[in-house]
Amino acid sequence: MAARNRTAQLGRCYLELNETGRVTFFTLLCQKYDIQEQQLSELMQAWQAADSDSRPALTRKLRHQLEPPRMVLLRQFNELPEGVKFLVDMRAELLKLSRQHPHLKPLKEDLKRLLTSWFDVGLLQLEEITWHSGADLLEKLIEYEAVHEIQSWNDLKNRLDSDRRCFAFFHPNMPNEPLIFVEVALVEGLAGNVQTLLDEDAPLADLNQADSAIFYSISNTQKGLRGISLGNFLIKRVVNQLQHDFPQLKQFATLSPVPDFTQWLDNLSEEEQQTLAFSSNSEELRKQLVQADQTEREALREQIEPLALAYFTEAKHPRYAPFVRDPVAHFHLTNGAQLARINWMADQSEKGLQQSLGLMVNYLYELPHIESRSQGYTGNGDIALSAALSKQKK
Amino acid sequence: MAARNRTAQLGRCYLELNETGRVTFFTLLCQKYDIQEQQLSELMQAWQAADSDSRPALTRKLRHQLEPPRMVLLRQFNELPEGVKFLVDMRAELLKLSRQHPHLKPLKEDLKRLLTSWFDVGLLQLEEITWHSGADLLEKLIEYEAVHEIQSWNDLKNRLDSDRRCFAFFHPNMPNEPLIFVEVALVEGLAGNVQTLLDEDAPLADLNQADSAIFYSISNTQKGLRGISLGNFLIKRVVNQLQHDFPQLKQFATLSPVPDFTQWLDNLSEEEQQTLAFSSNSEELRKQLVQADQTEREALREQIEPLALAYFTEAKHPRYAPFVRDPVAHFHLTNGAQLARINWMADQSEKGLQQSLGLMVNYLYELPHIESRSQGYTGNGDIALSAALSKQKK
Amino acid sequence: MAARNRTAQLGRCYLELNETGRVTFFTLLCQKYDIQEQQLSELMQAWQAADSDSRPALTRKLRHQLEPPRMVLLRQFNELPEGVKFLVDMRAELLKLSRQHPHLKPLKEDLKRLLTSWFDVGLLQLEEITWHSGADLLEKLIEYEAVHEIQSWNDLKNRLDSDRRCFAFFHPNMPNEPLIFVEVALVEGLAGNVQTLLDEDAPLADLNQADSAIFYSISNTQKGLRGISLGNFLIKRVVNQLQHDFPQLKQFATLSPVPDFTQWLDNLSEEEQQTLAFSSNSEELRKQLVQADQTEREALREQIEPLALAYFTEAKHPRYAPFVRDPVAHFHLTNGAQLARINWMADQSEKGLQQSLGLMVNYLYELPHIESRSQGYTGNGDIALSAALSKQKK
Amino acid sequence: MAARNRTAQLGRCYLELNETGRVTFFTLLCQKYDIQEQQLSELMQAWQAADSDSRPALTRKLRHQLEPPRMVLLRQFNELPEGVKFLVDMRAELLKLSRQHPHLKPLKEDLKRLLTSWFDVGLLQLEEITWHSGADLLEKLIEYEAVHEIQSWNDLKNRLDSDRRCFAFFHPNMPNEPLIFVEVALVEGLAGNVQTLLDEDAPLADLNQADSAIFYSISNTQKGLRGISLGNFLIKRVVNQLQHDFPQLKQFATLSPVPDFTQWLDNLSEEEQQTLAFSSNSEELRKQLVQADQTEREALREQIEPLALAYFTEAKHPRYAPFVRDPVAHFHLTNGAQLARINWMADQSEKGLQQSLGLMVNYLYELPHIESRSQGYTGNGDIALSAALSKQKK
Repeated sequence: MAARNRTAQLGRCYLELNETGRVTFFTLLCQKYDIQEQQLSELMQAWQAADSDSRPALTRKLRHQLEPPRMVLLRQFNELPEGVKFLVDMRAELLKLSRQHPHLKPLKEDLKRLLTSWFDVGLLQLEEITWHSGADLLEKLIEYEAVHEIQSWNDLKNRLDSDRRCFAFFHPNMPNEPLIFVEVALVEGLAGNVQTLLDEDAPLADLNQADSAIFYSISNTQKGLRGISLGNFLIKRVVNQLQHDFPQLKQFATLSPVPDFTQWLDNLSEEEQQTLAFSSNSEELRKQLVQADQTEREALREQIEPLALAYFTEAKHPRYAPFVRDPVAHFHLTNGAQLARINWMADQSEKGLQQSLGLMVNYLYELPHIESRSQGYTGNGDIALSAALSKQKK
Repeated sequence: MAARNRTAQLGRCYLELNETGRVTFFTLLCQKYDIQEQQLSELMQAWQAADSDSRPALTRKLRHQLEPPRMVLLRQFNELPEGVKFLVDMRAELLKLSRQHPHLKPLKEDLKRLLTSWFDVGLLQLEEITWHSGADLLEKLIEYEAVHEIQSWNDLKNRLDSDRRCFAFFHPNMPNEPLIFVEVALVEGLAGNVQTLLDEDAPLADLNQADSAIFYSISNTQKGLRGISLGNFLIKRVVNQLQHDFPQLKQFATLSPVPDFTQWLDNLSEEEQQTLAFSSNSEELRKQLVQADQTEREALREQIEPLALAYFTEAKHPRYAPFVRDPVAHFHLTNGAQLARINWMADQSEKGLQQSLGLMVNYLYELPHIESRSQGYTGNGDIALSAALSKQKK
Repeated sequence: MAARNRTAQLGRCYLELNETGRVTFFTLLCQKYDIQEQQLSELMQAWQAADSDSRPALTRKLRHQLEPPRMVLLRQFNELPEGVKFLVDMRAELLKLSRQHPHLKPLKEDLKRLLTSWFDVGLLQLEEITWHSGADLLEKLIEYEAVHEIQSWNDLKNRLDSDRRCFAFFHPNMPNEPLIFVEVALVEGLAGNVQTLLDEDAPLADLNQADSAIFYSISNTQKGLRGISLGNFLIKRVVNQLQHDFPQLKQFATLSPVPDFTQWLDNLSEEEQQTLAFSSNSEELRKQLVQADQTEREALREQIEPLALAYFTEAKHPRYAPFVRDPVAHFHLTNGAQLARINWMADQSEKGLQQSLGLMVNYLYELPHIESRSQGYTGNGDIALSAALSKQKK
Repeated sequence: MAARNRTAQLGRCYLELNETGRVTFFTLLCQKYDIQEQQLSELMQAWQAADSDSRPALTRKLRHQLEPPRMVLLRQFNELPEGVKFLVDMRAELLKLSRQHPHLKPLKEDLKRLLTSWFDVGLLQLEEITWHSGADLLEKLIEYEAVHEIQSWNDLKNRLDSDRRCFAFFHPNMPNEPLIFVEVALVEGLAGNVQTLLDEDAPLADLNQADSAIFYSISNTQKGLRGISLGNFLIKRVVNQLQHDFPQLKQFATLSPVPDFTQWLDNLSEEEQQTLAFSSNSEELRKQLVQADQTEREALREQIEPLALAYFTEAKHPRYAPFVRDPVAHFHLTNGAQLARINWMADQSEKGLQQSLGLMVNYLYELPHIESRSQGYTGNGDIALSAALSKQKK
């Protein structure tokens, strides 16, 4: 109990420290409570000298020796009320501070290791969020929504209407704090325009006609869980749930942004520009788009869509080729989705025009192919394209 | 999803295997999915050769290399419905099988490591169990109670009456499955007789008069969690809870069995027999006790109580001296309790007479001294005795 | 608030009164807080003299004048915590006391009027009771079960197993207090033996094969609600619920006792004895039954079953002809059920043999015919018989 | 079940009727299912002729005869899902329609009688509403708030902050539908300005310093429950609840509007104007107020406050003297409150200036005096004034 009290006190102290104080505290943890390299080294020598009978015990000791003593303290914070949230927030702080203070990196990694085991997907709870959910929870959706900003409580209510679903993962020790949530529209056919989906005045979809579930927004909420994979599992669990609730659903797809398209366009090498027969820039295209009449728009479309297809299929990540450059595409291809359709004028908001000239993409989750596609992409960078896009590409 | 399905299938297969099949399955996991010693050894060499800048990355790799590949599979079981319970039961199976199949020990340890992180005390929920709890939960208490068997539903109801409390730890992914539970009586003064406490016909205690909380039974329920410390935390959390609910409580103590007293008596060396001036055996003493009249009993008491005091203060664990031989005493002394009183004729059941000649012990949890006593015992084997027992000892 | 406090105090006083005290209290309420006949009489004269325009207002006043002032006090008890239960229990007391003290009858009726409006079926909640329900609720089932006594917690658990259902009505202001409950077995075909249904060692029924829901026990729990109709609605609501949960169910029937059969047999007039060709008595028949071998039993059956059929179709209620004499039959026929089958050796318990020579009856609820059958019986005393019984009768 | 189905069908029909259709439906109920006057008249004659032994039975029959047959139908609607809400809304409709169709009045009264018994205060549940409550419930507060309009979700959140409380009555068969709710501020001293209370930027009150609970808004929500007293009980229950939760609270008071002050001022007779030495009008005063500097305001205050005191103490209800003219004052005086303080410039909103020249009033609920004050007012029209106001009056 005394240890518990001391940890509680330490926790309160930490919360009152300013940035300098926290750097000092973290530095102390890094330096004074680090792995003891001398003992570790001796243990390695013993292990290497040992016969196979003695090795298991030494392996165990090695594992133990590789856990820095500060882990004990970090674990104790978990006993505090809201201790898990405390540690998640502490990692958020460390992620920020370790950019300027790289010596804090080991501590950052310790915390990631700890949180990874506690946020194991099997420990998380999938819950549906509705207009009946508490206002304190709902205002967090408004705060956390990262893809298509929630404009007002009415906008939120519309996203929770009878033809919509919203699901989130929760951790049992962080009640009322969604970790990641997805917004889904139940519609007829692949949805190809996000403003239509978000239109508060649009009539309700007829659930009996709905054959498609469109995942039009996925938002992580906890900075302190960065790098701990949740989205992949959330999509799978929600697909399962929706299949159960609405057996008539035929397809599960996203309506996703294309965050870096224009940035890529504006940074093409001369050679690429030649290959793509494109020498303008995105700003110019955007202006033309905005002012274009119907005929001109069609002309622009014939120019832009092939560029977009090239972007998805040719542009590789600068460091992690053969993976694609587009982060959203990378996420869904890793999960085993197919790049199904590029939607013209699908997001006409300021932000949509700026980042992708209004393009959005449907990634299609076809259950029988998910695993092979995921392996094809993660193994070889194979990009699953729909028949239509494959044809277009040739 | 496919991986998930395969894991589910594997889980179902496992459940249908007989013992031989399970040994084969476990052996496979041990042999084919073990640490790769060659790579580990090379990594150690690299680490030893590295300068301090390169070491953190290598340390990380070492940690990773020390996790056998089978851990991935074990974690995936967690995604199943009731996956946590599945793994707890699997460990129970392994604990049993590894006695005859010692080559399974590494797998047993992997599972312990995994469960230890998931059953971190900060992730557990303390809940009160009452007569209003579900019958499906209550029948588990009847099944699991390990100290003083619950005879009937009426016996159980009596233990949940208004002058009693019962608390349990639950894991969020194992709802309705208590992990460990404690039964508490709220009484006036230190309770010294367990039959009195369990008497269904005894009148209800007046809660306003109660100044003592007596923990008269603590039972672990999950064989698969053996060795993962829960009892220590449960006592602390329950003391906190009771202090909050009943500010008038002045002391927190157990009424505990003395499981090995007669066994110790019957195995004294000649030298010890001489020192203790005892050359009989427990069977003999028990017979005398049962037949004794009041006066004879007092004589027996004067003989037996000093033996008991010697047992607690002199008898050390054969392998872990200076720790005490009595496992219950070891548990409470480790937690920082004081050996407060030895109670004569405190458990007159068959079992009580057999294992301890009817003696029971109060261990007293005095909050201000818990930490120092715990350190005194775990550091030096110091045994905290009440003033009365100290005096008696001299 | 003061009025509330006084009512609370009065309530506590009442609870401490012995029977004499309560009679005094009730008598006071009857005499001092009764309708004022003089004023009522004047109001009637005014009403009779009034023209049609003035009558509505006078009608209103009449209604008001017909409510004795004690109703205000009775209503106030409702504001106490557990006030509704208090009044239900008070009515139970009055039902008992008014037998010896008939002057209390008006108060008894006031309370019935009040409770009838509060226990309107639309205000009641249908809830399923399972083995997961609180032990405090479940022990009430054990206490209240009036048809086939629950022998033990194991017996109860068996009645809540996966091939059984139990439903109860609750009043929102009497949580955890079932008002009436019904036990249902989901089986294949019409169940014709209650010992088979209650056999704890019988294997679980396969729910996929079940095509019949057998209501084998209905028990009212609150004496203070006698005469306030609940059972009729409970059956209807449970049929709806089961149809929703198990669309494969084809028939809904009871397996019901025949409480007064032997009593009727033993009180036949000579003329009836002649008509029925029966001159023995039930005691004799029971003895023969118990000692009979297979062949003798068949002979007895051929004698007894026609008697039973005559009992159901010929024996009328002494005061309420053309309604039937058997109270259980009256209840189900009123609700629109059909007398479907008389089951031989269906309840071989002591009680079963004594009251009905082991016979039990299935009443069948066929939804399309319920209303016309109910009207046929309540209007003309028509008894709906199954084709088999009709044939047998001729 | 058939009857139930027919009622359900009738209910659906009703909902689809337009106003004319509903009038026709209601008229039918009034005319065809009314009391049978002939039979009632005969019963009265029988009653008058009867001796005292026969009267109880006749009284019972009279009561029965006084219930029009349409009551059966109305009660059956209650069996529908949401049947209670259906009937509440039906009464709201009748309240509206019966103004133009006075022949519907008896039906309106039948429904009131029915709802009065179902909305007995003992059947209602007091619940606290917080920011954690469902958004679907909270948006109803925004819709229903009748005293100080809720401007936005932020305004609402401020009213549910840690120094505020909100309580509502619910009916068990109308979940998620508040019947009446009260907003309370926990502050130090009597609050005298509503804009201060509603200021979203004001700092949180320190709950430890709070000694007063200020009821600053009470809103009924269901038009169909008009005339069924709820507010009185709500205040009492909330006072009890707050006393329990915050024993440090010393006073319970409202901060209430004065809805008809200016209307009264503008309709004074010449004689009253002379007595009060006031010959202007409220519009004039309001203009002066708005333009006044500090000194002028004080002068206005000296003129207006005595007028207000006269309004409260002299102005009687035109039809129900000796009760006061002000409806809010009438409500609180009936409940036993004291008129404690008239607050200058307490509501500077447009509405506040218009209806009361910015005045608001504190009604103080002093528990020991509530009953005598309530009796004094309801019996004789006695108005309880604080010492300060009494002095001022002289």
